Amino acid sequence: MKHTISALVKNRPGVLAESSTAFHNNSINITSISCGETENMEVSRMVICAEGSDEDIAKVTKDLQAMDFVIKLDDLARKEFVDRELVLIKVDVNKDSMSQIMQIFEVFRADVVGMGQKTITVELSGDQERVEGLIKILHPFGIKSMCRTGMIALKRGDE
Amino acid sequence: MKHTISALVKNRPGVLAESSTAFHNNSINITSISCGETENMEVSRMVICAEGSDEDIAKVTKDLQAMDFVIKLDDLARKEFVDRELVLIKVDVNKDSMSQIMQIFEVFRADVVGMGQKTITVELSGDQERVEGLIKILHPFGIKSMCRTGMIALKRGDE
Repeated sequence: MKHTISALVKNRPGVLAESSTAFHNNSINITSISCGETENMEVSRMVICAEGSDEDIAKVTKDLQAMDFVIKLDDLARKEFVDRELVLIKVDVNKDSMSQIMQIFEVFRADVVGMGQKTITVELSGDQERVEGLIKILHPFGIKSMCRTGMIALKRGDE
Repeated sequence: MKHTISALVKNRPGVLAESSTAFHNNSINITSISCGETENMEVSRMVICAEGSDEDIAKVTKDLQAMDFVIKLDDLARKEFVDRELVLIKVDVNKDSMSQIMQIFEVFRADVVGMGQKTITVELSGDQERVEGLIKILHPFGIKSMCRTGMIALKRGDE
C-alpha cells in the first residue's frame, strides 16, 4: 500500500542518510522524496512516498520518531491535506503533432518552458492524478525526458 | 559553494540511503533533494542541491559514479538547464491584509489552493529566485507553514 509521510526535521548533516537507511532496514521502497527548507532556516520538511505493508510502515514511523532530529511526523493518509507535485516533460514534436500537443497543454493548463527543433518542454503542477494524466496522454508522442519532484503537502485549514 | 547534481539511478531499494550516505561521508550538507519516477518505470531521477567546496563535490561525484545503480550523472552548474521548484505556503491573513496579499499572488501568478478563517494557502512554481522572492515578500504577513519540493531540472534544447 502507498503511504505518504511528512516529517519536520532539524536541518543538520546526516538526516537524509539516517532517515532513508531506516526505510531500507525495514525493507520499504521509497518511490519519491522531496526535502527542502521551511519558514524556519533550521528546520526542513521531508515528504516521503513509500510502498509497504501497514505493519512495516508503522515500524519505520516508530524508528523515525525515536531519532533526535525528528520534530514532528504525520502519516498523511489519515489527514486532510493539499498535495501538489511538479513535473518537467520534454516531448517529441513535429509539424503534424504540434497543434494537438499544444491543445493538450491548454487543457491541462501546462506551461511551455522550452522549445527545440524537435522537442518541446512543458511544466505542470497539480495533484498526482493530474500529473499522471498528462504523462499518460503525452506518452504516445514520445517522452524524451522527464523529471518529477515527488509530492509535497500541507494540512488543509488554519492549522 | 552551491552545486546542483542530477543523477539518473536504477529504481531499487537502498539507492537513496547509499547516495545520501556518500554525501554525509564527504561532509557535504544536502540543502534539498527531489527524487521521483521518470519516463522509464525502472529509472528514477534524483536532483540534489548541496553546499560544499569544489574538491568535496568532485569527491562525492566520483563516489557516486562508482556505484552500480548510477546510470548518468550531471553537475548542472556547468550546463544549460531549465530549473523549476514548487512551494506551498500557508500565510496568515485578516481583513486588512487580504487585498494586499491577493495582489502579491497576482503579480507572482501564484494560485490559491486553500482558504481557512485566518490563513490562505498558495502554490507557486518557478525558478529559485521567483520562489524565494514570494517567500520574502510574504514573510512580514506571517508564514504559518511552508513546504518546498527542492529543485528539478532538464537540459535545454533537444537533447
